[in-house]
Amino acid sequence: MDIPSLVLKGDNKAVARAITLVENRDEQAQQLVKRLYPHTGHAFVIGVTGPTGTGKSTLVDKMIIEYRKRGKKVGVLAVDPSSPFTGGALLGDRIRMLRHNLDSGVFIRSMASRGDVGGLARATRDAVRIFDASGKDIIIIETVGIGQTESEIIRVADATVVILMPQLGDEIQAVKAGIMEIGDIFVVNKFDLEGANRTFYNTAALIGPRNGWKPPVIRTVAKTGKGIPELLDALRKFREYQEGQPNRQRVQKEKIAAELLGRVKQELTETVLRKLNQSPEFQQLVDRTLAKKTDPNTAARTLLRRLIRFTGE
Amino acid sequence: MDIPSLVLKGDNKAVARAITLVENRDEQAQQLVKRLYPHTGHAFVIGVTGPTGTGKSTLVDKMIIEYRKRGKKVGVLAVDPSSPFTGGALLGDRIRMLRHNLDSGVFIRSMASRGDVGGLARATRDAVRIFDASGKDIIIIETVGIGQTESEIIRVADATVVILMPQLGDEIQAVKAGIMEIGDIFVVNKFDLEGANRTFYNTAALIGPRNGWKPPVIRTVAKTGKGIPELLDALRKFREYQEGQPNRQRVQKEKIAAELLGRVKQELTETVLRKLNQSPEFQQLVDRTLAKKTDPNTAARTLLRRLIRFTGE
Repeated sequence: MDIPSLVLKGDNKAVARAITLVENRDEQAQQLVKRLYPHTGHAFVIGVTGPTGTGKSTLVDKMIIEYRKRGKKVGVLAVDPSSPFTGGALLGDRIRMLRHNLDSGVFIRSMASRGDVGGLARATRDAVRIFDASGKDIIIIETVGIGQTESEIIRVADATVVILMPQLGDEIQAVKAGIMEIGDIFVVNKFDLEGANRTFYNTAALIGPRNGWKPPVIRTVAKTGKGIPELLDALRKFREYQEGQPNRQRVQKEKIAAELLGRVKQELTETVLRKLNQSPEFQQLVDRTLAKKTDPNTAARTLLRRLIRFTGE
Repeated sequence: MDIPSLVLKGDNKAVARAITLVENRDEQAQQLVKRLYPHTGHAFVIGVTGPTGTGKSTLVDKMIIEYRKRGKKVGVLAVDPSSPFTGGALLGDRIRMLRHNLDSGVFIRSMASRGDVGGLARATRDAVRIFDASGKDIIIIETVGIGQTESEIIRVADATVVILMPQLGDEIQAVKAGIMEIGDIFVVNKFDLEGANRTFYNTAALIGPRNGWKPPVIRTVAKTGKGIPELLDALRKFREYQEGQPNRQRVQKEKIAAELLGRVKQELTETVLRKLNQSPEFQQLVDRTLAKKTDPNTAARTLLRRLIRFTGE
């Protein structure tokens, strides 16, 4: 049986192989995702993000266990844009998998960056679709840190959970403004630490309602599993809220539009870089710029004009 | 007198106005940088980066004072890719300027992101050229935090200084691998803190020679100015090393080539986004993708094919 058929049957080994193809940008990967795409749209995609040290992996592990109790199949994609390693951090994945006793209803896979964010966001989307087509009910995208790159990746998700904790330093406070805007649900993890209530109230005070949804703040102690059922309940509520929204179709259209734009940009950039590197004119313009006979902006515009024609012009 | 003429005369107000134009991507800005470009190439550009809390601003302030003692004119560009504010954090700039008694040989300006890294890197390059043409001998690019984005911006510099400090947590250790590669000179600041020697030796142990240059580790206490002359000496040594390199011209060519590629990418992306948003076909393809009649990758390729012709095909 070929990979797509095996993925559709829920074979986790085939899922792993498919994600590797996507990660390597194999030409085969495009055919594969094309075949799987009509079978997607069933899963609920949850993004989990937050500063390093807040206990994201432990929390995600406990979410998996609770979702399994509720009969859901779970796929986890751990994304690390700052790591240059490729092929997935396989050893780490295996160690995490072991905690779930090789339960075939759970699959964990990590993905790292090849230095370009656009490529990673695209690979994340494709990996989510592979999970989705393989019958996972819940897909969790977990980022290692938090930043502009992570925000872009998390945008693939239907719901975003932001993890905070007590005793986060000023550094974290400074980035909070950015974090606050992307969260649909907030978690104050490590709630057994001192200062937990202050973090809880500070967080709640910073969140306003958006479009009729007031992001709740959930108190958890991931280590012991405390608060995890409440987090899953909040996620279900958010999903119901989302599905009941009158502008739901418009939002979905905008998501697809943004994805198409991203893909066009990515393809275009790759093609242009290839063309430029083969062009003798490019080298001449580099020399002229270095000699200050032209300036970088004029040189770039000249290249662009000679390289490309937009149709209809 | 027009802005470029005033910039060439070293008028800091004109420099400020020119940088605002560049930041706003005003069409006038391109003409301006074009006129200034032949007058650039004199300044030495130093990138200063490192984790938040290591005392970068204080260190940069003390570097300014020491460079002024040595008769150098200094421009500082404080770049914050995570901040969405525009127009420069003017109040902050003024407060920092006051510390230098409105010395006309010093000019400090901050720049923030408009959400795209490519644009910020380009604006940073242009701002550096404006400083350069205005007669600054030393230009310092200071990033607020550290990350992939900051690394990209710091690439504009001739020399990169990485600031570390004792008592940085595990979180920072984890990113060190990435930091270690970009530094030409390392600083262990706050050397009066406990554990300073350990940080010093750990840092030194992680650095290997590159192309005959072994990045030194300088011990500073920015608050008191301790170690700052040594840092400036190390920077001068690095500049001499760089100027004596036999492959110097090739390196400069590669820098220009990378800049041209970046500018072509940026221009192209902007044009394409504009075109796509005007195209009825784009909306049709979004609908077809949403209805699962096509998949995102095929849709993107279709758009690309219909929108653009590469010359010579």
